[in-house]
Amino acid sequence: MLTPRTEDFPRWYQDVIAKAELADNGPVRGSMVIRPYGYSIWERMQADVDLRIKAAGAVNAYFPLFIPESYLRREAEHVEGFSPELAVVTHGGGRELEEPVVVRPTSETVIGEYMAKWTQSYRDLPLLLNQWANVVRWELRPRLFLRTSEFLWQEGHTAHADQADAAAYARRIALDVYQDFMVNVLALPVFVGRKTRRERFAGAINTLTCEGMMGDGKALQMATSHELGQNFARAFDINFLGADGERHLAWTTSWGSSTRMVGGLIMAHGDDAGLRLPPRLAPIQVVVLPVRDDAEVVATASKLAQELAAAGVRARLDPPGASFGRRVTDWELKGVPLRVEIGPRDLAAGNVTLARRDTGEKTTVAISETVGRVPELLDAVQTGLYEQALAFRESRTADVATLAEAVEAAATGFARLPWRLVGDEGEAQLAAESLTVRCIQNPDGTLPVGTADTDDLVCIVARAY
Amino acid sequence: MLTPRTEDFPRWYQDVIAKAELADNGPVRGSMVIRPYGYSIWERMQADVDLRIKAAGAVNAYFPLFIPESYLRREAEHVEGFSPELAVVTHGGGRELEEPVVVRPTSETVIGEYMAKWTQSYRDLPLLLNQWANVVRWELRPRLFLRTSEFLWQEGHTAHADQADAAAYARRIALDVYQDFMVNVLALPVFVGRKTRRERFAGAINTLTCEGMMGDGKALQMATSHELGQNFARAFDINFLGADGERHLAWTTSWGSSTRMVGGLIMAHGDDAGLRLPPRLAPIQVVVLPVRDDAEVVATASKLAQELAAAGVRARLDPPGASFGRRVTDWELKGVPLRVEIGPRDLAAGNVTLARRDTGEKTTVAISETVGRVPELLDAVQTGLYEQALAFRESRTADVATLAEAVEAAATGFARLPWRLVGDEGEAQLAAESLTVRCIQNPDGTLPVGTADTDDLVCIVARAY
Repeated sequence: MLTPRTEDFPRWYQDVIAKAELADNGPVRGSMVIRPYGYSIWERMQADVDLRIKAAGAVNAYFPLFIPESYLRREAEHVEGFSPELAVVTHGGGRELEEPVVVRPTSETVIGEYMAKWTQSYRDLPLLLNQWANVVRWELRPRLFLRTSEFLWQEGHTAHADQADAAAYARRIALDVYQDFMVNVLALPVFVGRKTRRERFAGAINTLTCEGMMGDGKALQMATSHELGQNFARAFDINFLGADGERHLAWTTSWGSSTRMVGGLIMAHGDDAGLRLPPRLAPIQVVVLPVRDDAEVVATASKLAQELAAAGVRARLDPPGASFGRRVTDWELKGVPLRVEIGPRDLAAGNVTLARRDTGEKTTVAISETVGRVPELLDAVQTGLYEQALAFRESRTADVATLAEAVEAAATGFARLPWRLVGDEGEAQLAAESLTVRCIQNPDGTLPVGTADTDDLVCIVARAY
Repeated sequence: MLTPRTEDFPRWYQDVIAKAELADNGPVRGSMVIRPYGYSIWERMQADVDLRIKAAGAVNAYFPLFIPESYLRREAEHVEGFSPELAVVTHGGGRELEEPVVVRPTSETVIGEYMAKWTQSYRDLPLLLNQWANVVRWELRPRLFLRTSEFLWQEGHTAHADQADAAAYARRIALDVYQDFMVNVLALPVFVGRKTRRERFAGAINTLTCEGMMGDGKALQMATSHELGQNFARAFDINFLGADGERHLAWTTSWGSSTRMVGGLIMAHGDDAGLRLPPRLAPIQVVVLPVRDDAEVVATASKLAQELAAAGVRARLDPPGASFGRRVTDWELKGVPLRVEIGPRDLAAGNVTLARRDTGEKTTVAISETVGRVPELLDAVQTGLYEQALAFRESRTADVATLAEAVEAAATGFARLPWRLVGDEGEAQLAAESLTVRCIQNPDGTLPVGTADTDDLVCIVARAY
């Protein structure tokens, strides 16, 4: 039904998206239609990321889609980085515009303009903003969820009184918002590190990243958090009256995560039968399937689904229609973590079968004990998916001692080696092999403080999406 | 501080938006920056409307921002209605596009294209979709929240097997989603009726509307629900195999509500001291204010705020900083329904003062009883705001018997008169006086079924935003 992953991973990815009804190509090249099931996954990501953002003290706001071209030009690296990807509106309301406007590729510039208005004194800082929005970056080689000309994301933008506070906040977002969400909700281990100068965001002085390993051993950048130094504060004159009575330029950060995470989720956990969703994220955690269209079986299944829902489980009854086998295949495709199957024989014996999507394992349980057993099984699936992803990443991550060995190891996974063996020059060589340094870390895998190239640092080299 | 409403209502409206920090003008003409407090109001509207949409069986999805120009041209009335308001992207990725794309002014056309793909048999119907998105309609006379070139909204799009089902669903949305939300959450009475042919949505065969009365007696269209007949189904070939083995064209609907509701909320409930938010909507329901910076007072206030939060109330402590009077004024501006005030003398007496924003009424309550009393007071504010708005609307709605009387009554409020006395010709006369028929209703105020111009119908005439 699906192309096997080992045969053609990109084709398998497209098949899963089509058959699980996650998304379609849009009518304009590079655009995407997110179908209801795909969107319900994104909605749950949004809710959980939003909670963490609010816990980190940021508040939501909304800034305009259209940005004057002149704004982008104010920060040199930024405009250079985004110019090739811009969509430009030249006509509005039936007339040619005096100044063309660009459709936001990201909102540092327009938000910088308003931060400058709202920041008067040090008492207004830190100013911690976030927005959920669509952005547009023209894509020549689009891929659903991973690279689309329009995508949905959250972008955080903050202003701080000094560099230390900005750096600490960018770090807090990378660890407490993004890493925590990915590990604990998406069940996805990520390498958190800083980007090399070459790979930094356009206009940043430091970019922190969360890198996941996909089922083909390639890396996916799942979210980033940037220290922007005073670059945007200077360009937009975000200054404040300090406690010392003097005016100072602020220090800003920005950070984002997008619908790309849906792509990461598919590729990190999916198998040859389709999606596998971690229960904490899954829009449907449990599906209750009557094996046959038998009144008593359906009534029992329906009652179970209601009891599960009443117990706070996101449960759904799948009423008989297509064949049982076809329905099982469909729910496997959609990645529902747990199936409760009940047939006439089960009913006669007072039992149901609980089937885990992560391992395929089946357990027979008394009907009366089902609702009590489901939470522990969902926890087991959550843990199981994380452990499988971690074991896979470990099996495909090689510690190497030379650039040549890194190139070899990165053909199938990640290579880890001392950063001092790579450097700017090594990065250029890696680029020629279509490889990149995904991030720089401390040897124990933690996120380095600052951007100094100390001798003990290691880096992760991989092919990447 | 604010311009009084009776002196200059539009100026008062702008003042409230600026001083309560709800929104700012964006850098491109007609665009809007929604500031955190304004956005927190919109977020709560979204959550409550979304719940009702899901209860009506619709699911969320996301369709692209950019629509090929050719799509809009497929439905004649639709393209005619929207052409003057379109923003057009002519360049993308550094090149001129072969076919320019328009930034969606609404998504009937692009969603029609995908409904056609997804609708195969009658078993696929009804297809009930909704999306939360930004849309762009170039505005020459923008006004924050009410008319902005870009606004945020939800747009529902559904396909049905027959006209009766489509009509019933459009009606259900108008009543069970929009009216229910406005009455029970926004505390805003609305006239629900159908639009005249002249005022219908471009491409609809019937438009249902919820019309609210603002503080200056003008009408605001708060949300609409359209039967689109088979116009879009024909243009996009949304057809299905019926139970009869024949292919049939579907019947579609669309319906929307937007950030305009924030404008309606301000203008319907606001007074000369600022916003007044109904408790069910208010992002902050209760603010606890220590009168002075006294350690014991602040500790008691802080404990009360925590207890209220633990009891499920959206409560916030306002720590002492500016003068007490200034802080009270600020929270009144922001429309927080209830203040808990506590000073050293209150503390000595074991009391707090509870102050209602809707009436200004103050009650002294024992500290130990505060948490218990707050829910009933919030209910009283919710009911109080609704009753005030209803009484105001009744006092400004006149039953009249001629078009001339309608013109006179509509100078200060709504005029209600038999629709047969107006008709197409009367509408043209009203238009010359800058008046419109807001909606057509049954004489008892209920929503008529169908679009037949029976003799008993009445209509509401008013100035409108």
